Amino acid sequence: MADSRFFVKSKDFSLRELAELTGSELGTGAAPERVLSDVAPLDVAGPNDLSFLDNVKYKDQFLTTRAGACFVHPSVAELAPQGVCLLLNAHPYKAYAVAAQAFYPDIKPKGKVSAQAHIDPSAIVGAECIIGPGVVIGAGAEIGEKSWIEANSVIGEYVRIGAHVRIGSNATLSHCHIGDYTRLYPGVRVGQDGFGFAIDPKGHVKVPQLGRVIIEDHVEIGANTTIDRGAGPDTVIGQGTWIDNLVQIGHNVQIGQGCVIVAQVGISGSSVIEDFVAIGGQAGITGHLHIGSGARIAAQSGVMRNVPAGEEYMGSPAMPIRETMKQVALLKRLTKKNKG
Amino acid sequence: MADSRFFVKSKDFSLRELAELTGSELGTGAAPERVLSDVAPLDVAGPNDLSFLDNVKYKDQFLTTRAGACFVHPSVAELAPQGVCLLLNAHPYKAYAVAAQAFYPDIKPKGKVSAQAHIDPSAIVGAECIIGPGVVIGAGAEIGEKSWIEANSVIGEYVRIGAHVRIGSNATLSHCHIGDYTRLYPGVRVGQDGFGFAIDPKGHVKVPQLGRVIIEDHVEIGANTTIDRGAGPDTVIGQGTWIDNLVQIGHNVQIGQGCVIVAQVGISGSSVIEDFVAIGGQAGITGHLHIGSGARIAAQSGVMRNVPAGEEYMGSPAMPIRETMKQVALLKRLTKKNKG
Amino acid sequence: MADSRFFVKSKDFSLRELAELTGSELGTGAAPERVLSDVAPLDVAGPNDLSFLDNVKYKDQFLTTRAGACFVHPSVAELAPQGVCLLLNAHPYKAYAVAAQAFYPDIKPKGKVSAQAHIDPSAIVGAECIIGPGVVIGAGAEIGEKSWIEANSVIGEYVRIGAHVRIGSNATLSHCHIGDYTRLYPGVRVGQDGFGFAIDPKGHVKVPQLGRVIIEDHVEIGANTTIDRGAGPDTVIGQGTWIDNLVQIGHNVQIGQGCVIVAQVGISGSSVIEDFVAIGGQAGITGHLHIGSGARIAAQSGVMRNVPAGEEYMGSPAMPIRETMKQVALLKRLTKKNKG
Repeated sequence: MADSRFFVKSKDFSLRELAELTGSELGTGAAPERVLSDVAPLDVAGPNDLSFLDNVKYKDQFLTTRAGACFVHPSVAELAPQGVCLLLNAHPYKAYAVAAQAFYPDIKPKGKVSAQAHIDPSAIVGAECIIGPGVVIGAGAEIGEKSWIEANSVIGEYVRIGAHVRIGSNATLSHCHIGDYTRLYPGVRVGQDGFGFAIDPKGHVKVPQLGRVIIEDHVEIGANTTIDRGAGPDTVIGQGTWIDNLVQIGHNVQIGQGCVIVAQVGISGSSVIEDFVAIGGQAGITGHLHIGSGARIAAQSGVMRNVPAGEEYMGSPAMPIRETMKQVALLKRLTKKNKG
Repeated sequence: MADSRFFVKSKDFSLRELAELTGSELGTGAAPERVLSDVAPLDVAGPNDLSFLDNVKYKDQFLTTRAGACFVHPSVAELAPQGVCLLLNAHPYKAYAVAAQAFYPDIKPKGKVSAQAHIDPSAIVGAECIIGPGVVIGAGAEIGEKSWIEANSVIGEYVRIGAHVRIGSNATLSHCHIGDYTRLYPGVRVGQDGFGFAIDPKGHVKVPQLGRVIIEDHVEIGANTTIDRGAGPDTVIGQGTWIDNLVQIGHNVQIGQGCVIVAQVGISGSSVIEDFVAIGGQAGITGHLHIGSGARIAAQSGVMRNVPAGEEYMGSPAMPIRETMKQVALLKRLTKKNKG
Repeated sequence: MADSRFFVKSKDFSLRELAELTGSELGTGAAPERVLSDVAPLDVAGPNDLSFLDNVKYKDQFLTTRAGACFVHPSVAELAPQGVCLLLNAHPYKAYAVAAQAFYPDIKPKGKVSAQAHIDPSAIVGAECIIGPGVVIGAGAEIGEKSWIEANSVIGEYVRIGAHVRIGSNATLSHCHIGDYTRLYPGVRVGQDGFGFAIDPKGHVKVPQLGRVIIEDHVEIGANTTIDRGAGPDTVIGQGTWIDNLVQIGHNVQIGQGCVIVAQVGISGSSVIEDFVAIGGQAGITGHLHIGSGARIAAQSGVMRNVPAGEEYMGSPAMPIRETMKQVALLKRLTKKNKG
């Protein structure tokens, strides 16, 4: 399925291998030696392809899929069309993710430092790094081994980048430490001055931004996202957090581990986001707030008060989702009654 | 009017030429041989300038304009101040666009590949291309003839770019095909991994993103906009669609032809936008939705359900615009009654 | 406090020096010769550190701070814990800003034009400029003295940049004039075509964008922000205005002086923002509007009508903030009464 100009497949896998790899159980009648040669979405998969059903929106595609095998939750096993081998798993999307990684492992070119990169003699570049053409690395910067910095990115003075990191093209980093296995997409800006100044009619007075950005291990930061450095404290992005494209993170913000922050979210200065928080697209978090662990903020919400751990908020201004839903329903009823 | 350091005028035009060029009719008393030497907005235009009235907000400027000639809709012809020659057209803004293109045609420098570009020997660069300094073109990439890639942009391996394409500076492309006459503005990111992973408390599991981005002919993509490649299917932008700055397009999104997508819109993964849809600024479309042909989504809307063809939606959550307007009006009435 | 790899301290300061520098008065018992050696936030400051209390949210930190000295408003002086020397000032945050600038003055590397920059022979680069590697400067461009253009930025033909300007890495400028002491952050795009076209089912017709972008003195523009050039008139950003990250400014927009525009705001084409307007994050301003001097627009507002000078607006659609607040409160009451 995947365009072989862009993606290189490793090998075929038997159902037995896939079940072992993903901790899945084979469904009734699925022959362990049956071989799958690729992955594909339900609607285009053929008899040699492995697919998955996760989102109920796609149940109709499941009912008519021609896929050779499919990861599914045990509860929907009985709906499977004839001839589709089932790989039963409580987390079918995660199982698919693991299998797809096996079919298409992340391939990194061989370590090579481009002769067209501009690396300060005092910078340290680890073993087996890939440094693209046009990359600029400032004085005293340190890049861990096997990291990959793509073309035309700019790494500021004294920046520290861990091992196995990948920095996309045309990105800019300064005043920051980047953990191992972290990945920044093209056009990311990390470490520039936060939006800090004292308002004054004769000309706003800049407050020196004296903190850094600390990005921990296994973090992903989407394209053109901007993360300002702290004003005094550091701005921190915790381990394993995933941030989408065009997100704005203000100075001093602290984000815990395992969070999911969808595209175009804005988090204002000095707010604290605890672990495993999920924030929907285009939501905004005002400054100096505290969002408790495991909280969920719906898309486009405008959060103006602290959110307790585990709560789900929605709306602008954001409220507990049940209240927001009640208001939406009430307004609809009232409008009907009043005939507008 | 236009700063001649930045813009080069072609020549003067007579009213006759302008009428022919744009399919307009000359108003009463407009001498076909009258010559106009430039274009200008209503409020600053002088006797040698050509202007236009399209938005009723600017009617007052029309009433007092000193422009030599003006494209107008026939219905406002009688309001014209004395001495302004009229070019009557049912679509005055489009007529102006065509005329302005004639006065200021898009000028491209002569084809030249910079000695400071880094082009893989296996890449194919078509005839008369302009490749700026610092541009990086990966192995196996193909650039069609007369295309223009501005400074410091990065074109990934095996990317295919059509003919007459213009890619602005500092842009990044990978895993994509770009159609003819398409234009990407500076800082655009196309083809990076979509935001795809299975959530897991021990560390989210990445789902390999095995699709591409297909951008068809005559498309415009604004500055710093991000378009993720598909997870399995491709992300597709249809022919003649215009996308503004800082827009986010998620993986697997399919956008039809002739759409207009204003700045800072976000479209979540796997949504389908049919032809000629218009989406106002900062609106968000949830994932896995279907927006019918010709639908119009107001600015800042939050679309959480499918929108039928031709409908106009507004609000967050978005509803048919009449319902939203009723709710806005009702709330205003109720607040007055309750005296807050 | 500040990481000495990234920030260089100038020297220690006595309370007397700090009071003079900032126009503050020493609190009771504060010895003028007491020396402070650094600045730090209230919660981590030690006996040698200078701090400040501005936002009441941080009053608790003030009550227990171990800071050696602290800028405070006279009205909270009596709350100070024992041992903290007070610097009394009606504008404590501004006083802190000035003091912090003295401790950590902006240090610029010595003027140097990189041999890896690509500068057209007809461009003029002023004395003592710093031009980073990979920078591209087009024909006829002019850069004033002591300006700093960081790596891989692209300055288009005939662009004029003033003196003491700093342009961050990977930025793109065309069709613009930039005033003195102005600063653009990494990834900023200035001067690209505005989103101007006549809609047509056979293919939208581009309207040539014949204006420029004029950015006056002492302006700050945040990372990845996009500012389109005018369609005919210029797009103008007034003196001393601060713009945050990921902001979109449409063509022909005129912004006055001293404005504050927070991250992810979008301002549509041809709107006029007068002096000292403040616009909260993610707010949107429709096109062709007039926002009066000193107006304040709350975060996430959707402004669809003119806003009179000095007014505060909120909501989407935006209304005077008192009305919006009443509606929010009314809805809450009604929902309780109706038990949803």
